[in-house]
Amino acid sequence: MSKKEKQFVEEITPMEVDFAQWYTDVIKKTDLVDYSPVKGFMVIKPYGYAIWENIQNYMDKRFKETGHKNCYFPLLIPESLLKKEAEHVEGFAPEVAWVTHGGNEELAERLCVRPTSETIICEMYSKWLTSYRDLPFLYNQWCSVVRWEKSTRPFLRTSEFLWQEGHTLHETYEEAQAETLQMLNIYRETAENLLAMPVVIGQKSEKEKFAGAYATYTMEALMHDGKALQAGTSHNLGQHFTTAFDITYSDRNGELKHPYHTSWGVSTRLIGGIIMVHGDNRGLVLPPGIAPTQVVIVPVASHKEGVLDKANELRDRLKDKFRVELDDRDNYSPGWKFNEWEMKGVPIRIEIGPRDIENNQAMLFRRDELEKDAVSLDDLEEAVEKLLEDINNNLLYKAKMMRDEKTYIVKTFDEMKEVMEIKPGFVKAMWCGERACEEHVKAETGVTIRCIPFEQENLGHTCAFCGKEAKHMVYLAKAY
Amino acid sequence: MSKKEKQFVEEITPMEVDFAQWYTDVIKKTDLVDYSPVKGFMVIKPYGYAIWENIQNYMDKRFKETGHKNCYFPLLIPESLLKKEAEHVEGFAPEVAWVTHGGNEELAERLCVRPTSETIICEMYSKWLTSYRDLPFLYNQWCSVVRWEKSTRPFLRTSEFLWQEGHTLHETYEEAQAETLQMLNIYRETAENLLAMPVVIGQKSEKEKFAGAYATYTMEALMHDGKALQAGTSHNLGQHFTTAFDITYSDRNGELKHPYHTSWGVSTRLIGGIIMVHGDNRGLVLPPGIAPTQVVIVPVASHKEGVLDKANELRDRLKDKFRVELDDRDNYSPGWKFNEWEMKGVPIRIEIGPRDIENNQAMLFRRDELEKDAVSLDDLEEAVEKLLEDINNNLLYKAKMMRDEKTYIVKTFDEMKEVMEIKPGFVKAMWCGERACEEHVKAETGVTIRCIPFEQENLGHTCAFCGKEAKHMVYLAKAY
Repeated sequence: MSKKEKQFVEEITPMEVDFAQWYTDVIKKTDLVDYSPVKGFMVIKPYGYAIWENIQNYMDKRFKETGHKNCYFPLLIPESLLKKEAEHVEGFAPEVAWVTHGGNEELAERLCVRPTSETIICEMYSKWLTSYRDLPFLYNQWCSVVRWEKSTRPFLRTSEFLWQEGHTLHETYEEAQAETLQMLNIYRETAENLLAMPVVIGQKSEKEKFAGAYATYTMEALMHDGKALQAGTSHNLGQHFTTAFDITYSDRNGELKHPYHTSWGVSTRLIGGIIMVHGDNRGLVLPPGIAPTQVVIVPVASHKEGVLDKANELRDRLKDKFRVELDDRDNYSPGWKFNEWEMKGVPIRIEIGPRDIENNQAMLFRRDELEKDAVSLDDLEEAVEKLLEDINNNLLYKAKMMRDEKTYIVKTFDEMKEVMEIKPGFVKAMWCGERACEEHVKAETGVTIRCIPFEQENLGHTCAFCGKEAKHMVYLAKAY
Repeated sequence: MSKKEKQFVEEITPMEVDFAQWYTDVIKKTDLVDYSPVKGFMVIKPYGYAIWENIQNYMDKRFKETGHKNCYFPLLIPESLLKKEAEHVEGFAPEVAWVTHGGNEELAERLCVRPTSETIICEMYSKWLTSYRDLPFLYNQWCSVVRWEKSTRPFLRTSEFLWQEGHTLHETYEEAQAETLQMLNIYRETAENLLAMPVVIGQKSEKEKFAGAYATYTMEALMHDGKALQAGTSHNLGQHFTTAFDITYSDRNGELKHPYHTSWGVSTRLIGGIIMVHGDNRGLVLPPGIAPTQVVIVPVASHKEGVLDKANELRDRLKDKFRVELDDRDNYSPGWKFNEWEMKGVPIRIEIGPRDIENNQAMLFRRDELEKDAVSLDDLEEAVEKLLEDINNNLLYKAKMMRDEKTYIVKTFDEMKEVMEIKPGFVKAMWCGERACEEHVKAETGVTIRCIPFEQENLGHTCAFCGKEAKHMVYLAKAY
């Protein structure tokens, strides 16, 4: 590596030295995002937005396959609507942005910028629903929401973020519960298959559930630094909102009933997860499914006759099947380009130079393992396809290994404190199920119960934290 | 037509009786949109949103083919930024919504909900641009914007609407101008090919141009009631904003320069245009390119053996190639369904009953001409494909005929007043080019200059309105 190239890579702080700085370096230097003049608000740059578009395309298809339709509800919500569901307003009022003036006039009632849309959507649903024949309502919207945050980090916690929010109504509790879990499973499947990000799925404790929910389900991923990321939630809202908003329909017996209700969402936070699960000290490592560029072609000695032509030919061969880019900039050396594309996390780099052409081959470099191999040009499409699949599987495998290595069983509170001190990660422990105990753990250590996983294990009979009888095995962690 | 079916259709006010009421009836009864509890804000329901998604998919592809990338800029803009370009703030300040509180705290500086994003984007561009090698910047965002409107109508003028806004930077004036016209042409091509909506393209007068623009170009469509709809605009912003925001780069000679700048946008307003150009007294008539359902299959005598099976079989045959729906609801008669789907503007209805099955045929009904023909089931795919194409061509042809019939040449102000009184439409007239004259015309008649069309005709030497020497031929109309 030449000195100049070395410096290029050294711009990223190693994650072992300072994980937060590593994250900041990566998102800025790879052009995913930028800070805006409005504190806590981010600009999602084209490279970051293309990742979001790939996530959207994948998930939107899954939503539609399961019968959901998109729509759009107003950005602004009257204060009186926000207040209709008591727990909900308590949870959200402290963090909403208030519009008080329209043009030069003060508004009679102030409007909040939506922090989430249960209230405005329920208000509309109460107008739309008449008969059991109208059910289920299976609607979703892609939009941005605003939650005033004191301390923000791009993708992980910002005062505005992009997301989707699904809102459904059903005849029975069972149908609502099935929908809640179906959507959680679509989230899990997206995380694992598209993002190569393993997740633990389970139920939130009463303390951690969504403001106004009957039950909240979550998927939790573990980051390189041993902190957890809540990566998506799905809520069974029971009849809390449908009662508060007086949504009724005449059921199969002609009686007036409140329907059952769910909501579920994932956000641009997923991009933060991808970065912190797969990234390394050279920068991003993007799973092929969401990489804006899956394959970059870098010509070597491109001034030599035939090299650029061949590089163009390869691009044309690959472009219908893969997201491929030819880097034919003439003001950067191949070495500089190699480093830049590695930093940007492009899964495969194809190097093609005069000697490769002579040998009817190209070098295929894989970002996940930083390895390269010669491939015959006759088999290029197959080789690329297979390698992308390999990379995806390998990323998921490595992320699972990483998570398992950082997952510990603890029997006592002291043991957990020690673990969190020296090797932070997921902690599995038995818990009594009581809120006071959970709050005590959080107050003393900053560690929270991430979820009561569906896959329960019996680790003992007493709560690791208070010694009372244990009710559940839970995952705990410090969290983003 | 049975009495019940007749009543069903009669719910829509005939457009000759009251065009505004016809429009309101159509958008409400076809479930495109609903009014929200926030005055002037609409809810776009699934049927309306699916049209927007089809428009988005088509245009987004065209934007990307021409090198543009999507990104996302903050929803909220500090007041100080909005004020940086003098004409711009004057144009927009009276109609923005102001956020004054975040959570429980009053903000030090109030923030407006973006009415358009030139200011925040230029602020970011000033950080991002360094060298001529970085140019052009070709970015776009899909989002919602808020403009406080006193008098609103869904899709046509609402306090919040969905749109795309492209913002580009270029080295030279010529490149910026070429970009401005390229995007206008993509808009025109989308209007004509996808929406079957003919448009006149040209330049806005100084009075009507965008606040802060060097020159604004527009496409103008004519509605059934003879009023014009500004359906998309593309602005050459010159160096107005890049100077105000001090965006500079070192050019090919190492000198510091301000780049040239464009912006361009279309919105959910296009849906209003589709409704008012193609709709009739039975309801919507949707162009096949954007119809959420292109083909609806209605089984006749579906209780008879084999009918539902055959209907399902036809749906399965068509579903990979077309957006097709099988209406197998058992609580509505075929006649009721025919009316409902006609009202919803579905381009093709396939009727299949026992006798059709015997004859190995189906009835194909086309919404645009309200005609039906028997088609052999052997040729169904080809027949549907051809008919959709026919419908699209026919809709464009009919819309052009309608527009031409309602386009008049006038030589004097009195002549225009008379035309606008008895047969409103587009008026072509010669104009002196002076703002005072234009303002006089508007003040006296409410008629505005829609554009100075690229296709000029010489209709005389003097201004039709003030008698001075004529500079341009212009299109005038009352407008939405």
